[in-house]
Amino acid sequence: MSHTAKPIVTVYGDGQLARMMQPAAAELDIHLRILASSQEQSAAQVIPDVVLGDYHAYETLVSAAKDADALTFEHEHVPTEHVQALIDAGYNVQPQPSALLYAQDKLFMRQKLAELGAPVPRFAQIASVEDARNFAELVEGRVCLKARRGGYDGHGVWFPAAEELDSLVAELLEAGTPLMAEEKVNLTRELSVLVARRPSGEVKAWPITQSVQRDGICAEAFAPAPGLSPELAQRAAEVGELVATQLGVTGVLAVELFAYSVAEVDNWGSAASAAAASAAGFPSDGAVEDIAVNELAMRPHNTGHWTQDGSVTSQFEQHLRAVLDLPLGETTALAPVTVMANVLGGPEDPEMPMPQRVRAVMERYPQAKIHLYGKDHRAGRKIGHVNVVGEDVEQTRHIAADAAHFLVHAAWL
Amino acid sequence: MSHTAKPIVTVYGDGQLARMMQPAAAELDIHLRILASSQEQSAAQVIPDVVLGDYHAYETLVSAAKDADALTFEHEHVPTEHVQALIDAGYNVQPQPSALLYAQDKLFMRQKLAELGAPVPRFAQIASVEDARNFAELVEGRVCLKARRGGYDGHGVWFPAAEELDSLVAELLEAGTPLMAEEKVNLTRELSVLVARRPSGEVKAWPITQSVQRDGICAEAFAPAPGLSPELAQRAAEVGELVATQLGVTGVLAVELFAYSVAEVDNWGSAASAAAASAAGFPSDGAVEDIAVNELAMRPHNTGHWTQDGSVTSQFEQHLRAVLDLPLGETTALAPVTVMANVLGGPEDPEMPMPQRVRAVMERYPQAKIHLYGKDHRAGRKIGHVNVVGEDVEQTRHIAADAAHFLVHAAWL
Repeated sequence: MSHTAKPIVTVYGDGQLARMMQPAAAELDIHLRILASSQEQSAAQVIPDVVLGDYHAYETLVSAAKDADALTFEHEHVPTEHVQALIDAGYNVQPQPSALLYAQDKLFMRQKLAELGAPVPRFAQIASVEDARNFAELVEGRVCLKARRGGYDGHGVWFPAAEELDSLVAELLEAGTPLMAEEKVNLTRELSVLVARRPSGEVKAWPITQSVQRDGICAEAFAPAPGLSPELAQRAAEVGELVATQLGVTGVLAVELFAYSVAEVDNWGSAASAAAASAAGFPSDGAVEDIAVNELAMRPHNTGHWTQDGSVTSQFEQHLRAVLDLPLGETTALAPVTVMANVLGGPEDPEMPMPQRVRAVMERYPQAKIHLYGKDHRAGRKIGHVNVVGEDVEQTRHIAADAAHFLVHAAWL
Repeated sequence: MSHTAKPIVTVYGDGQLARMMQPAAAELDIHLRILASSQEQSAAQVIPDVVLGDYHAYETLVSAAKDADALTFEHEHVPTEHVQALIDAGYNVQPQPSALLYAQDKLFMRQKLAELGAPVPRFAQIASVEDARNFAELVEGRVCLKARRGGYDGHGVWFPAAEELDSLVAELLEAGTPLMAEEKVNLTRELSVLVARRPSGEVKAWPITQSVQRDGICAEAFAPAPGLSPELAQRAAEVGELVATQLGVTGVLAVELFAYSVAEVDNWGSAASAAAASAAGFPSDGAVEDIAVNELAMRPHNTGHWTQDGSVTSQFEQHLRAVLDLPLGETTALAPVTVMANVLGGPEDPEMPMPQRVRAVMERYPQAKIHLYGKDHRAGRKIGHVNVVGEDVEQTRHIAADAAHFLVHAAWL
């Protein structure tokens, strides 16, 4: 290792999350390498060191790992046995499969979180139509059915009506989809706690984010979450730190949370398991909102994109620091509020070329931070996002939403 | 041009300024191409599209210009005749040589600024020892001698003692160095006004920066300049806008300014030319500080590095927007103060490898934003900088300075 040798991080993945690690890598003089399926992929457009290949092939994973100080991921789809084989071969993989497992399998995740005393909705493994019927009875029909593996952005999640349940479950099991079910909660809003943890144990949380989902996809995010009580913000951060530490997560971890009004607890019955209810620590009075864990993601996450422009340290920089076991950066917010609005491909792509849409948004909103992923249009596809820092939530939200809307539709809201 | 065709910007240069354009280019989905002397250069390490060659060769400049929407620079050394030839061949060059000339030749710059009524110290062309003697007499020995072309970071600037003047001037002219002289001012501090202008005319200034030079090299920068009167800040911004507009600058322009106390004006005699004095608009009372132009740079500038972490729009993003004639981004500061401290190679490189120094700084200062250029150590060489945003000037300054000091010396201040 020469005096100036720079750390090398290999990212298995070629999408926008890997792409957005490049600015921080360049500034910190970290050599970034990606494994990409083609030279045209989002991350491959902006990173010089690209290994082409398929992440399902172990030999390809190894060829991208040469001399790397850390190997990491931008998705959960690298086969667990390959990840384990890399570790056995002496590579430094972060996060480790022992943690990744809980982001890959929703049933294991629920079981582990319940065991740790983290707040979760009631849940059950669904291995038969019988299991589904029993669970539906328990939760009075409020069933959310989930594929245990491979779901994202609303894919692999179903809210079946009572009469659909049997046939849907039978069909999914028939197709070989491992299933679980959980109680559908009466959501007031969705929150996300973003933390990073490094192998030597340091954990840091960003201010809690509120996200707005449309059709199962994150549409907007606000940080710090407007109007969240300091107590609940603190407890959400503690849940994030608990999960990161107890699951041995390294790198960025996003814990998506359901927030519900405590008054509505009765609506979902005696609520959660006794363990979860106790861990949720419902205060006896004064509290109006509480939280339960929805999903985990062990990588930079859409609800953390605001940190690029609204926090001292972005989630992408922090992920690189964390997987290299470098001390974590400060996570304080730079403004009273930062709003992120996703740019999701519309039903069709407008005539106006994207560069012209960008120009129009820059003209109208000089404060908008535009992030594009170099991706072609496809309906519902995430092709970019807009961050805006500001003082007033509604005003800042309008700017971000209007800017993102124009980038999608070539029309203002 | 396909629907998703991204704008292409070619940068002639391979140093840290081109390198630091890459993060903004990636986020805005601008395709960045550089002309580099080798694959190991600072910018070539982080940008996929690298054309190798020498910027002195016109054919090489052309080969890097293919399909580019704009051609720009990170230094002033591309031969003017080649730049003109590119324009004649139909390429979109920003800034144009008609403006660049004033960043390349200090005498032309002074003459033009005096003509525009911008505040400048007294100056003269020095074509003979006789010229130098006359000027020295005029300014009572307060002579600053400058090479008209090619100087930077204190190179090409001399403050000769009276008895050295003749021999120094003779020697330099003998060596073929075109010279000018200007009156040495009684500096209170150095300021810099950073503006960007795009071809269609829009101009935006950032808050005024104060810089601290050591051995002719920028060591630290503070923004907004502490304790600067709002009137003087306004006037400095107006000077920046005047220069950018009247010289037809496009892209980022840094106008380095001398600040001096008005009480000291008498020290440099009847001061400036009548035109300059009038343009300087010395107020009759209450004012304690005034400004004069020192140097111009038509590209992102060391005194603007703070904008990466302390402003809504960084100078690197703004330069790209400006040369593409895109609307300019907001330039407001994100914090009460941002301090930048340069990481300049020390007399020798410490034993501790740079990555370990980085680790130590991250450990001690989680709020420090470290920017490294991927350059090997050389005494006095700019190899990185540290930005810190904060509330209190002295405290923030200490963090930035201590962090930069450790990166250089592997020891705390």
